[in-house]
Amino acid sequence: MAFGLKHLLGLEGVSREDLKTILDTADSFREVIDRPIKKVPTLRGVTVVNLFYEPSTRTKLSFELAEKRLSADLLNFSKSGSSVSKGETFKDTVRNIEAMKVDMIVMRHACSGAPKFLTEFASSQVINAGDGAHEHPTQALLDMMSIRRKYKKLDGLRVVIIGDILHSRVARSNIWGLKTMGASVAVCGPTTLMPVEAQRMGVDVYHDINKALDGADVVNVLRLQLERQESGLLPSLREYTKLFGITHERRSLLNKNHTILHPGPMNRGVEISSDVADAKDSVILDQVTNGVAVRMAVLYLIKGGGSKEDE
Amino acid sequence: MAFGLKHLLGLEGVSREDLKTILDTADSFREVIDRPIKKVPTLRGVTVVNLFYEPSTRTKLSFELAEKRLSADLLNFSKSGSSVSKGETFKDTVRNIEAMKVDMIVMRHACSGAPKFLTEFASSQVINAGDGAHEHPTQALLDMMSIRRKYKKLDGLRVVIIGDILHSRVARSNIWGLKTMGASVAVCGPTTLMPVEAQRMGVDVYHDINKALDGADVVNVLRLQLERQESGLLPSLREYTKLFGITHERRSLLNKNHTILHPGPMNRGVEISSDVADAKDSVILDQVTNGVAVRMAVLYLIKGGGSKEDE
Amino acid sequence: MAFGLKHLLGLEGVSREDLKTILDTADSFREVIDRPIKKVPTLRGVTVVNLFYEPSTRTKLSFELAEKRLSADLLNFSKSGSSVSKGETFKDTVRNIEAMKVDMIVMRHACSGAPKFLTEFASSQVINAGDGAHEHPTQALLDMMSIRRKYKKLDGLRVVIIGDILHSRVARSNIWGLKTMGASVAVCGPTTLMPVEAQRMGVDVYHDINKALDGADVVNVLRLQLERQESGLLPSLREYTKLFGITHERRSLLNKNHTILHPGPMNRGVEISSDVADAKDSVILDQVTNGVAVRMAVLYLIKGGGSKEDE
Repeated sequence: MAFGLKHLLGLEGVSREDLKTILDTADSFREVIDRPIKKVPTLRGVTVVNLFYEPSTRTKLSFELAEKRLSADLLNFSKSGSSVSKGETFKDTVRNIEAMKVDMIVMRHACSGAPKFLTEFASSQVINAGDGAHEHPTQALLDMMSIRRKYKKLDGLRVVIIGDILHSRVARSNIWGLKTMGASVAVCGPTTLMPVEAQRMGVDVYHDINKALDGADVVNVLRLQLERQESGLLPSLREYTKLFGITHERRSLLNKNHTILHPGPMNRGVEISSDVADAKDSVILDQVTNGVAVRMAVLYLIKGGGSKEDE
Repeated sequence: MAFGLKHLLGLEGVSREDLKTILDTADSFREVIDRPIKKVPTLRGVTVVNLFYEPSTRTKLSFELAEKRLSADLLNFSKSGSSVSKGETFKDTVRNIEAMKVDMIVMRHACSGAPKFLTEFASSQVINAGDGAHEHPTQALLDMMSIRRKYKKLDGLRVVIIGDILHSRVARSNIWGLKTMGASVAVCGPTTLMPVEAQRMGVDVYHDINKALDGADVVNVLRLQLERQESGLLPSLREYTKLFGITHERRSLLNKNHTILHPGPMNRGVEISSDVADAKDSVILDQVTNGVAVRMAVLYLIKGGGSKEDE
Repeated sequence: MAFGLKHLLGLEGVSREDLKTILDTADSFREVIDRPIKKVPTLRGVTVVNLFYEPSTRTKLSFELAEKRLSADLLNFSKSGSSVSKGETFKDTVRNIEAMKVDMIVMRHACSGAPKFLTEFASSQVINAGDGAHEHPTQALLDMMSIRRKYKKLDGLRVVIIGDILHSRVARSNIWGLKTMGASVAVCGPTTLMPVEAQRMGVDVYHDINKALDGADVVNVLRLQLERQESGLLPSLREYTKLFGITHERRSLLNKNHTILHPGPMNRGVEISSDVADAKDSVILDQVTNGVAVRMAVLYLIKGGGSKEDE
């Protein structure tokens, strides 16, 4: 195994070989968590800190479970109630946590680039669990894993990401990862929620949902943050649903053997209709299962890769 | 072992044989937690989620400790800070948690019937840790265990439950369990805090504490929620204490070899006087110890029972 | 090993032999946590409760990590959301927790003497994690460990503690421990923040920082609680920094081979300048690492010591 990453900060620039190693390893861990005894001693005696500067339920639970199933010791550190409020610098807080002899830091932060900044002074290995609108690499990896398990490939598939691309770290990580793996990626959403750099990222940009869905294999429906309406970026939720909501009718535009993804939590009746969410061929819950497997794979590979680099 | 339950939603309808199996198993686990090494590998690799939609200290700690002493992996999920506030449905939240490959869900909820609703769509095995005013089966089991360890039987004992029967899931679970095991059960409390269905449950209803205590073996003193006074259901705490408080004097009405239980936390000087709470023959702290043992037994039996059913 | 303590409530009155045993054991555990597999099975099956009635980040994380690395089962109990708000007495809360068959309680409380009160009715072994302005023994032990690892001794060293001595449990524990080990201790701070009993504790009292630092080996810089200014105990932070701040210039007054400690979190630019905090010979982060080792040692010795006493 020649895994090349010491940290996982994002999928931009990660090689096809490394992505493939992660997805293959995640497939193996998926087998582990399908067993009655869902635990391996792989990271016994290794300490992982979950450093969450932004609230999170599902990503945090998923990482915790991945860490426990690898037998790591884990520490949870959240912003509230911490020394942050005592005026300590971010750098001092992290250095203090690290001084307790930590091996890996899983970090979520509202600021893009915070995990990268961490690697500049921390000796631990860092996994980005979502930073601002920048990247959310493990989410994209679980999306890719869920697609690959269905089609046995990513190369040549046509994937459309629908919604608020502007604020979406999930979209960005998916774009980098999927393109590296040979998929063609399109994005579709309101002009007010489309980043100017979209085209430079090598994706097709649509504002008409019908054109975007036409002939697609995979649709990744982003969660609509309801506060976007208050910020004036959306005229109304009803209009959003009418223009961009994924409904049973719109599925007919897709290729026959299509797949619909959603990173959750869903706003049923807004960006996705309940019949689509609950359809038998939906992989939305499969994504959650794969999320634990992907995180086990990343923790395992990063730990191994890092210790090799240190030798 | 022919344990018949896939879930533990309540004690209503649970057979005498299953109750006996739980109490016998709990006695064995009580031996385990009396040892210096209070841990067994029974549920290693099994994942239990504590899904608490209502705040809880002692029940949650007791379940956590039971899970850890069985070597299970546990995840804590509380309402605050979760996706609930993001507008996700209860069903979607639970399905997502389950998709992480969870084996058992321990659930507390303010709504009666929430754990039952859970079993309708969840594939995990569900243990009710208290739902509204409906049932709190593990509390009743620990009460029954504490009584049985003292008298070596439940059959034929006369048990009186004192207090706010109307809002008490503890009372309901005790009534079902004790009656199935052959005890005679009476309830006593203010008319405003007595449910209309009390008599239909097969218990004697008293409003005069002296008559209720006369000749009883066991008194289970319910905690008085102090907010009942504000709701106008009680004229005053002082009057409640005068009419229903368990004091040293009132103990003389009981059978000589009597036992006093309280589910905690106690309002000393309200529903129970300090001398009664601290009396040498009080089993109030013993109840807490037995609570961990009972929860270990339930987790163990439900897991075994469920996997058998799945085979 | 003839370790004499059943509890660790403070360093006042602890014998030189027991302090030496703790520091020697901590050196061994420091080796453990410097390894890739930072875990030993020493306290497997032992239950430790972290009972924090006052918010804490680093001390709590450090104890948690120490407990996990000793393979203990741990329960976290914090004040907020607990039965405390339900009107239960402190004594009943603790007795209930203990009834779950707990071996050790690590306790932080805003009231001086709370851990001592605990030992009067609890059967568990108690470790004080900071009580009011009284003592914070594990912090002082990690300070002493960090000094001893540098000088290979404590005897004969001159240690100066700078800052708000009046409110500092860290200062008190350091004074007792260091003096027992043969160090000479001085304190220096504003008159409004100096306790009247300082001289009775056998330390030199300075109000002039230049005289205090002259010829010292070790400076322990206390964190300045910024709220002291609001309480009128300090005219201004700027004046405090000017009179008592540890800067590069002031280091020249110290012995050549000197060491600077800070218990954290630091107010950079207030009680300590950034260049001093980040100087190559700073042991501030080493203190944090040693903190985990010291806590492992205390948990291990107290557990062993206690079980011996019980036999």
